[in-house]
Amino acid sequence: MNLLLLSNSTLPGEAYLGWCREHFARFLGPSKRIAFVPFAAGTTRIDAYTPRTQARSPGVGHELFSLHTEQDKVKALATAQAVLIGGGNSFQLLRMLYGTELMRAIRVRVMGGLPYMGWSAGSNVACPTIMTTNDMPITEVPTLRAMGLVPFQINPHYTEATIPGQGGESRDQRIAEFLEVNRKAVVAGLREGTLLHVEGEKLTVEGRGMRVFRHGREAKDIAGGVELRTSLMDA
Amino acid sequence: MNLLLLSNSTLPGEAYLGWCREHFARFLGPSKRIAFVPFAAGTTRIDAYTPRTQARSPGVGHELFSLHTEQDKVKALATAQAVLIGGGNSFQLLRMLYGTELMRAIRVRVMGGLPYMGWSAGSNVACPTIMTTNDMPITEVPTLRAMGLVPFQINPHYTEATIPGQGGESRDQRIAEFLEVNRKAVVAGLREGTLLHVEGEKLTVEGRGMRVFRHGREAKDIAGGVELRTSLMDA
Repeated sequence: MNLLLLSNSTLPGEAYLGWCREHFARFLGPSKRIAFVPFAAGTTRIDAYTPRTQARSPGVGHELFSLHTEQDKVKALATAQAVLIGGGNSFQLLRMLYGTELMRAIRVRVMGGLPYMGWSAGSNVACPTIMTTNDMPITEVPTLRAMGLVPFQINPHYTEATIPGQGGESRDQRIAEFLEVNRKAVVAGLREGTLLHVEGEKLTVEGRGMRVFRHGREAKDIAGGVELRTSLMDA
Repeated sequence: MNLLLLSNSTLPGEAYLGWCREHFARFLGPSKRIAFVPFAAGTTRIDAYTPRTQARSPGVGHELFSLHTEQDKVKALATAQAVLIGGGNSFQLLRMLYGTELMRAIRVRVMGGLPYMGWSAGSNVACPTIMTTNDMPITEVPTLRAMGLVPFQINPHYTEATIPGQGGESRDQRIAEFLEVNRKAVVAGLREGTLLHVEGEKLTVEGRGMRVFRHGREAKDIAGGVELRTSLMDA
């Protein structure tokens, strides 16, 4: 398997898909036909999502096509040389993936070697479940289970910061609540401007770094540039 | 129906159940036997939740008992003169309410006049769905539908503030995403230190105030002290 899992698309004050441009280009290599999955965008934004992303196409000669507008989505996926899942709302994305049979089809192809890229919600669905999303549950989903391409959970946009003078749980408290109910899970809190490159058993952290959470253990910071075994992030 | 729906239990720097003490006392009147629902607390905190809340018991002579420790929860509820649903994680709470048959039993009794008090997750479950919770989906739920005691959605801990330098959606963006998918819904964003008192067709806003969101319309601020018809908050 070959996965590029990003925390986020855009850093505050920077261009859309700016910080990750070089990473995408290196990951993809020369010209590829990329199936783009825009389902995480709301209904009014979904049509603009593909051209907006195509315009920021990573590297030279890549061609993005939207699975959203394909009649036979599973057949269209078969022609792709890579798949890219955009961020937005994880519940919306998961619902559409199940509703279109792409959940299984993408999983099968990626297990067979198709390069997979995703950010935010697009990284959440590569995990065993979307239980560590930050998104509002704006729509029903058949289950919170997702593709399970990696054995751990990702919390995108991870930060220990909170809004001053505001109650409600911090991100760390939310992740602790998740681990209390799911004690064998491992959570990778990916700071904005961070990605994981999973290549078979090798997992490389790139960018600002991540914080790893396990039940009953102290959280551990791992800096960008560090290479791990994927199995170390297993339950 | 007689409902007291709070945004939150605790204001930063103040005591647990401090700001709402007077409101609870006025709502409850003299000594009542109150069924407390602590399910929204994580498994390790659930046992301490009832004594902690009893210690802050609103007003004189009230007796709190936990439905959590009752063998026959539905029968125990029948002996209560009020029900109080504590905050925590809305998914956890909803799952337990369905798993114990309290979802239906509480709804029936409250529709019949039993006073209902809740904060945060305990306010979310009084709404048609928990789709406007801020909580992480740490556990599967059979559905996002909830009690529907009021015709509108509550977003507790509402704030327009964001974490400086942090991407990801603002609360307003999240609510807009919800409304895009659920276009007939009305969302009451309850600022911390705000509650709604619903008494039949009368709805009173108390405290810091709320912001009301509808699809395609500008959000509207409503101050504490304002009285509305509940039907004005209907879809």
